[in-house]
Amino acid sequence: MTRDGAGSPRTDGFRDECGVAAVFGHPEAANLVYLALYALQHRGQESAGIAAGDGERIRRSVGMGHVAEVFTPQRLEELAGTHAIGHVRYGTAGGSVLENAQPLRMTHRRGPVALAHNGNLVNALTLRSELVRQGSIFRTTSDTEVILHLIARSRAARLEDALAEALGQVEGAYSLVVADQGRVIVARDPRGFRPLSLGRLPDGAPVVASESCAFDLIGARFERDIAPGEMLVLGPGGEEASFHPFPAADPAPCIFEYVYFSRPDSYVYGRSVGQVRRAMGRRLAAEQGVDADLVVPVPDSGVPAAIGFSHASGIPFDFGLVRNHYIGRTFIEPAQSIRHFGVKIKLNAVRALIAGRRVVLVDDSLVRGTTMAKIVTMVRAAGAREIHVRISCPPTVAPCYYGVDTPSKEELIASHTEVEAIRAFIEADSLGYLSLEGLTRAVQGGDGEFCVACYTGDYPVPLSDGAEVRREMRLIDESVEEIGGIGGRQEKKR
Amino acid sequence: MTRDGAGSPRTDGFRDECGVAAVFGHPEAANLVYLALYALQHRGQESAGIAAGDGERIRRSVGMGHVAEVFTPQRLEELAGTHAIGHVRYGTAGGSVLENAQPLRMTHRRGPVALAHNGNLVNALTLRSELVRQGSIFRTTSDTEVILHLIARSRAARLEDALAEALGQVEGAYSLVVADQGRVIVARDPRGFRPLSLGRLPDGAPVVASESCAFDLIGARFERDIAPGEMLVLGPGGEEASFHPFPAADPAPCIFEYVYFSRPDSYVYGRSVGQVRRAMGRRLAAEQGVDADLVVPVPDSGVPAAIGFSHASGIPFDFGLVRNHYIGRTFIEPAQSIRHFGVKIKLNAVRALIAGRRVVLVDDSLVRGTTMAKIVTMVRAAGAREIHVRISCPPTVAPCYYGVDTPSKEELIASHTEVEAIRAFIEADSLGYLSLEGLTRAVQGGDGEFCVACYTGDYPVPLSDGAEVRREMRLIDESVEEIGGIGGRQEKKR
Amino acid sequence: MTRDGAGSPRTDGFRDECGVAAVFGHPEAANLVYLALYALQHRGQESAGIAAGDGERIRRSVGMGHVAEVFTPQRLEELAGTHAIGHVRYGTAGGSVLENAQPLRMTHRRGPVALAHNGNLVNALTLRSELVRQGSIFRTTSDTEVILHLIARSRAARLEDALAEALGQVEGAYSLVVADQGRVIVARDPRGFRPLSLGRLPDGAPVVASESCAFDLIGARFERDIAPGEMLVLGPGGEEASFHPFPAADPAPCIFEYVYFSRPDSYVYGRSVGQVRRAMGRRLAAEQGVDADLVVPVPDSGVPAAIGFSHASGIPFDFGLVRNHYIGRTFIEPAQSIRHFGVKIKLNAVRALIAGRRVVLVDDSLVRGTTMAKIVTMVRAAGAREIHVRISCPPTVAPCYYGVDTPSKEELIASHTEVEAIRAFIEADSLGYLSLEGLTRAVQGGDGEFCVACYTGDYPVPLSDGAEVRREMRLIDESVEEIGGIGGRQEKKR
Amino acid sequence: MTRDGAGSPRTDGFRDECGVAAVFGHPEAANLVYLALYALQHRGQESAGIAAGDGERIRRSVGMGHVAEVFTPQRLEELAGTHAIGHVRYGTAGGSVLENAQPLRMTHRRGPVALAHNGNLVNALTLRSELVRQGSIFRTTSDTEVILHLIARSRAARLEDALAEALGQVEGAYSLVVADQGRVIVARDPRGFRPLSLGRLPDGAPVVASESCAFDLIGARFERDIAPGEMLVLGPGGEEASFHPFPAADPAPCIFEYVYFSRPDSYVYGRSVGQVRRAMGRRLAAEQGVDADLVVPVPDSGVPAAIGFSHASGIPFDFGLVRNHYIGRTFIEPAQSIRHFGVKIKLNAVRALIAGRRVVLVDDSLVRGTTMAKIVTMVRAAGAREIHVRISCPPTVAPCYYGVDTPSKEELIASHTEVEAIRAFIEADSLGYLSLEGLTRAVQGGDGEFCVACYTGDYPVPLSDGAEVRREMRLIDESVEEIGGIGGRQEKKR
Repeated sequence: MTRDGAGSPRTDGFRDECGVAAVFGHPEAANLVYLALYALQHRGQESAGIAAGDGERIRRSVGMGHVAEVFTPQRLEELAGTHAIGHVRYGTAGGSVLENAQPLRMTHRRGPVALAHNGNLVNALTLRSELVRQGSIFRTTSDTEVILHLIARSRAARLEDALAEALGQVEGAYSLVVADQGRVIVARDPRGFRPLSLGRLPDGAPVVASESCAFDLIGARFERDIAPGEMLVLGPGGEEASFHPFPAADPAPCIFEYVYFSRPDSYVYGRSVGQVRRAMGRRLAAEQGVDADLVVPVPDSGVPAAIGFSHASGIPFDFGLVRNHYIGRTFIEPAQSIRHFGVKIKLNAVRALIAGRRVVLVDDSLVRGTTMAKIVTMVRAAGAREIHVRISCPPTVAPCYYGVDTPSKEELIASHTEVEAIRAFIEADSLGYLSLEGLTRAVQGGDGEFCVACYTGDYPVPLSDGAEVRREMRLIDESVEEIGGIGGRQEKKR
Repeated sequence: MTRDGAGSPRTDGFRDECGVAAVFGHPEAANLVYLALYALQHRGQESAGIAAGDGERIRRSVGMGHVAEVFTPQRLEELAGTHAIGHVRYGTAGGSVLENAQPLRMTHRRGPVALAHNGNLVNALTLRSELVRQGSIFRTTSDTEVILHLIARSRAARLEDALAEALGQVEGAYSLVVADQGRVIVARDPRGFRPLSLGRLPDGAPVVASESCAFDLIGARFERDIAPGEMLVLGPGGEEASFHPFPAADPAPCIFEYVYFSRPDSYVYGRSVGQVRRAMGRRLAAEQGVDADLVVPVPDSGVPAAIGFSHASGIPFDFGLVRNHYIGRTFIEPAQSIRHFGVKIKLNAVRALIAGRRVVLVDDSLVRGTTMAKIVTMVRAAGAREIHVRISCPPTVAPCYYGVDTPSKEELIASHTEVEAIRAFIEADSLGYLSLEGLTRAVQGGDGEFCVACYTGDYPVPLSDGAEVRREMRLIDESVEEIGGIGGRQEKKR
Repeated sequence: MTRDGAGSPRTDGFRDECGVAAVFGHPEAANLVYLALYALQHRGQESAGIAAGDGERIRRSVGMGHVAEVFTPQRLEELAGTHAIGHVRYGTAGGSVLENAQPLRMTHRRGPVALAHNGNLVNALTLRSELVRQGSIFRTTSDTEVILHLIARSRAARLEDALAEALGQVEGAYSLVVADQGRVIVARDPRGFRPLSLGRLPDGAPVVASESCAFDLIGARFERDIAPGEMLVLGPGGEEASFHPFPAADPAPCIFEYVYFSRPDSYVYGRSVGQVRRAMGRRLAAEQGVDADLVVPVPDSGVPAAIGFSHASGIPFDFGLVRNHYIGRTFIEPAQSIRHFGVKIKLNAVRALIAGRRVVLVDDSLVRGTTMAKIVTMVRAAGAREIHVRISCPPTVAPCYYGVDTPSKEELIASHTEVEAIRAFIEADSLGYLSLEGLTRAVQGGDGEFCVACYTGDYPVPLSDGAEVRREMRLIDESVEEIGGIGGRQEKKR
Repeated sequence: MTRDGAGSPRTDGFRDECGVAAVFGHPEAANLVYLALYALQHRGQESAGIAAGDGERIRRSVGMGHVAEVFTPQRLEELAGTHAIGHVRYGTAGGSVLENAQPLRMTHRRGPVALAHNGNLVNALTLRSELVRQGSIFRTTSDTEVILHLIARSRAARLEDALAEALGQVEGAYSLVVADQGRVIVARDPRGFRPLSLGRLPDGAPVVASESCAFDLIGARFERDIAPGEMLVLGPGGEEASFHPFPAADPAPCIFEYVYFSRPDSYVYGRSVGQVRRAMGRRLAAEQGVDADLVVPVPDSGVPAAIGFSHASGIPFDFGLVRNHYIGRTFIEPAQSIRHFGVKIKLNAVRALIAGRRVVLVDDSLVRGTTMAKIVTMVRAAGAREIHVRISCPPTVAPCYYGVDTPSKEELIASHTEVEAIRAFIEADSLGYLSLEGLTRAVQGGDGEFCVACYTGDYPVPLSDGAEVRREMRLIDESVEEIGGIGGRQEKKR
């Protein structure tokens, strides 16, 4: 599966989700969070935001687009304070609008609060429906806002207690960073669906981020993962208090972070993502070996598994597909007469390498199958004698409810199509997937404690929001529409 | 007092307030509201907005700046539907930000609601403090949002009942237009502080606007004023139901609409604004006559009274002060060496008319006195032999709580300075104000049922919000700050 | 004729032309030129520009729109230097594009030159055609660029000589301000078609501007007019050298500056514009008297003549038509069903003043007649018993070739229609124009040395550019088209 | 050397140059040129432009930034016509301004002409100085504009003859595409410094592009290179006439296209760029072998040579350095305390792969050495036991005059530093370059007909512009400055 550069046209596969970061007790807190978000940019490119606290107030700045687009030096400078939280977001289908950009913030009787969320709640609409019935006014369509309203209505005196009370009512996935004027609170749901790590800057200041690659960029050291079900309060005096306010549950961290999401240079759930991917490639070669001349990755996400495949099989590795590094976020469609155009704008097959050879094409996932079909056609047109497609995970059969933006079940080709039929559809000479056992072994060399729902359909936490409340809330959301775009002047500063 | 053209630098006097409009049952509802707002632009230049309903949903578009800047043809076209409400706003000190632009809107369990408000509530902060304590999350610093939360929390089934219940709790001034998917509801507070009129398009569709000049532009006929304490529901079947859900109170319409606010071509509270101003000028000549050669208005707001003064006194009228019609909203200060620059950028004295003559300078108000001092100096530099300043209302001694943005009491020169001392400050040869009796006689030829609190300090409805709740709410409002400006991409449409 | 506020939709009449200004030997030269342009904004609203010299280089900044829109404090600050020239432009039909914004500038072997031009050349296309034949590359469609190319090709060593040589080849109207690194050169064509005055700042620095109102704003004193045919060189040592390098010719200053163009508070050609207009109104009353109840000006340009008419006739003056001061530059057309909409957006008739009365409507010009027809209809709808239209100049029968943007001859209603038929077209009860003799007497109390070609068709300097060269050059201009609009990033600073 | 993604901060090495493309006789000409420029984006990211002809006129659209930013669907649609030329530009130090964006265009007596240029002229300033002396006015600081003026001044009747005459006077490098209303003319300088190829669309329409990867994207077939010294005229009737109007000279195509510039999937000068690079890597392994555990490329440009090195040496290849794919074009510098920050924002070392191993770092060039020094430090911090740097070309000792934007001679570390001292500077354990003989053998397996001036300082065409004319022209260019940025309105369309 291709992960694209800046603002590329979407592939037919999974889309990224979100990333969070926080820094506490550092004079350049907002700037360091900015850099951490930069390193986490692959986790969400739709909006970016930072909120910083200086003991008296919270300042927030959010915008649509990439981190480097949203933040100007002036904006960052205005985000004064010694603690900050940040968020990069990949919007869900509903609303790619500024209102949904995180960190969300509110003022309530305890003062200001900002909150950023990676994950997805499975009972958000049920809770929201009840809150609306009680007279709460929602300003976003984001599941995250439910948490804010639950905090606002809590009778607890302290923010951490109100937050624990609120999280006690929600179900699903959350890796959260929360800030008020003087503190940062970090929380990870009891299943630990999404990653969240704690690092340490050279001067001892704590840093929190979705992936450890953020620590590398800002010169912080990885310390430990935030545990599933843990709430960590970073307080004004420098104290770091850890709580476990929720009932215990079996951890179920998302295995797809290893397969596709996380950066290869990150350590996630305690292991190097890149090394795990090479191990998948080696297992894939063992399980789905083939006689061929060349191992070609689908760049860039297929590269580590292809290297592992090459090492294990002894078949030479080379870049038979070349990426265009300058894919813009707007692209104008050309004449219909150009065949397989959609994939050509991103990839080109290198005839000089491919012509006359038996090629193993390695990718990390196969979702709808349409992109792979185009790639196979392009590689064959470049003269490949045989094309053997190898996928470094099992067939994807079920959508994710915990924060990964997957196509619907109907769109997942493997949910209704046998492997041989998929092979025929993509017109490959052979097609092989890594087995679930192979995947879990590659991941940890042992038995699975991971969420593998996308490969099995067995969900650790069921979707609570029923069809009725989904329809009810959708009707409400659709009953207003904001007409925007060009027009009017800039706001003046408050 | 000078009322400036497009985006002029502010004078030292009153600033405008707000204007509202609504159209019901017309295929071009949003377009007609746009035009009505255009005619009401003098009532607020900071933001403009329209919400339109089509039976199924509410579409809203708001922006900073003038009506003609905010709305593009595309935006207007997207505001589909057969009823619409609109608002022009002059922001109060706090927050000239898009979030405060009206119509405000929310979705609640009764569906979507949009609401636009002219006026000011005197117990908004007390109500807001209580709502926050109960867990409501506020998104603006506008008093108007309190009404939305009261509606959302009301147990009443119908919107009109929830609105009446909400308005039963607020105190102060409101001329309101409210829309849901299928209806428009109009309300005016029991005192009738701010004007609100009902008109009729040629095809019978009802129109509501702050002033009748909006009717002229769209070809509608003035029908009647919305009565103080009246609530009018314009329903899907074309029914127009009038209610009086609030306890009766003595009306106290704002007299300052005649003195300065309303356009001279409007009928307000049943009389022609321009005619009333001429009558003030005539009475002013009778009360404060002077032997002089020329009556010169301070353009543009002093013109009608100056014409009345000229007619009554027989002293010729002429434009001894000329306005620059191209005053932009940003202006770069020049060298300090240019004297009286601030007023020169807007006005120039015509030496050919003024030199050697005894001039009566007529203006509608005198607030801080600093602008008039500069004008007197400029007129004297142009060669005037004598300068007699005449003001067509009494000294302004108290701020307004009902929707007029006045300077604080300390800044009102007449609140602490005798007339003779003001004359000395502005360096005029004489200074005369119209008496309160003269003003009320000019307004109606009889005894006053008007709010004249700005001239007397006697408030028909006292300010409920105490200093403590004002401080508490200000602290909450200031505890968050949005850092905006350049940066990031456009939103995608929902 | 209505002169509109900021960016109003165009009337059906004359459009403004251009204005120029220059300051020499002052540390805030660019800032003072900015202010002067501000005062001259009525002469052109399409683009604005300033070029400043500091002895070493010329810095230029131009933009589309009003002076206050184009210049930010940063831009002005970057325009360092002790001399500066400036321009406001009303674009001709062809190209409202940034390339045509003035001052134009070039570098040639004598160094950098910037040049700003008010007026119009009548042999520009002939000269341009010859220059193109010789291999010159034109970058604008402006007649002014011809002067630059003639300077560039001149063999003269000094800029002033090259300029004199270039101007010796052009025919038509020019009031010019030119700057190189160290000097400002000012020139006015031998006929003196367009005004140009010299003023003096308190510290003795010379100022040049199209109208004296610019001097008032910056605190300068009017000194004298630049004479027809004069070239004035303001040199680095403070010397001010005056030349008359062109053959003498009978002066023919444009009388329309008095009728409409210039601001009423300016002195032009030695007389107060406002006073001249009042004199026109008095003569108009004498020539075209009528029994009536009220003199109503078409605001704002009809006001001075209406006051004169009222004084001479004894008929009371009042504002029966009220202007909307907030006319934006974009305006969205409403339903066709609204009658006379185009004029309503700018003007409203005040029924309270007009109803039942015999009204004299005074305006300064009548061009196509369509606007006046709408005004008459609107005034009659407001209840006027009789409407007598009086125009304070003769019928306009011929277009201007010297810098006034007039409609074509066919569009000038008086070029082909008798007065009685015009009266019938506009549906007035009577129509009267000031006679040419009355106009020239009002202007100077004596015989005419003015250009009155728009009233007579007798052109002091004939149009040299024949139909063939006009077609040839238009074909060349139209052979390229620049596709612009949204897209791409900002330039980086050089 | 790192080639960065969208708008990355510049490396310390070579910057790209320019790319050109043209399509003739196709109804979607501008759209196809847009796509071709997309494929050539790596050759220049500063500005992009297209000019299209429809038989009657030339329409042009240019903008700053990437192709996908500059062109909206509307802009492309307006570029009507059946032939088009395009350009992507990497600006030289002087002026990253829109005026310099290509295609340049002019109108002259033969009609409109647009012209786009890849390369650099070595006598442009001498020619420009003479043209200025003759009265030509230059609007850009680009060497390309000289060609326009020479065409404009040519007496030849036909454009192709005028172009040949003009090119006969210029010296240096040019791959040109030129369009008038009805034709496209293509030219390559006699040395053939820069590549230029001819392709064919399926319907037979000719396509021209700097590299063949543009043909792949639009579904065209590579046909042949445009020969050094060839001029090809594509005429209205479909004729394709080839001329050789210049004196013959020994070809000297730029070898650096193979080393770094061209895309690996392009065929340039008849060979696959990617294959040539792998051959360089194999020769590098033979010449500069070392005992090590891992071959790590500096991504992305070092990858092909690293693969060749791995294949030849048998040392495993892996991605020990990971790129951040989301590098924005603005980036805010962090705290100084973060070490080696500049390279970290683009690259991260993968400790899991590197720790404890002997690493061969392969890159394509080493220019200033500062980036490589940071990379070595980062790789060592990730635990590498030994670091052996290998460069797949000889030391770069001399700047390019033919269109490659190289640092000055002083900045090229190898121009004044021995290899051992460079090794010490970058703190590698060993450093090895490919020999010049090795490079030329890798490129063609035979003797060199390439320009290798950057490795030898022997220039095939000497720089004609002397220091004096360079200073003279720089003074002229610097004598004017355009102050731009925010301010003013949009142009209206012509």
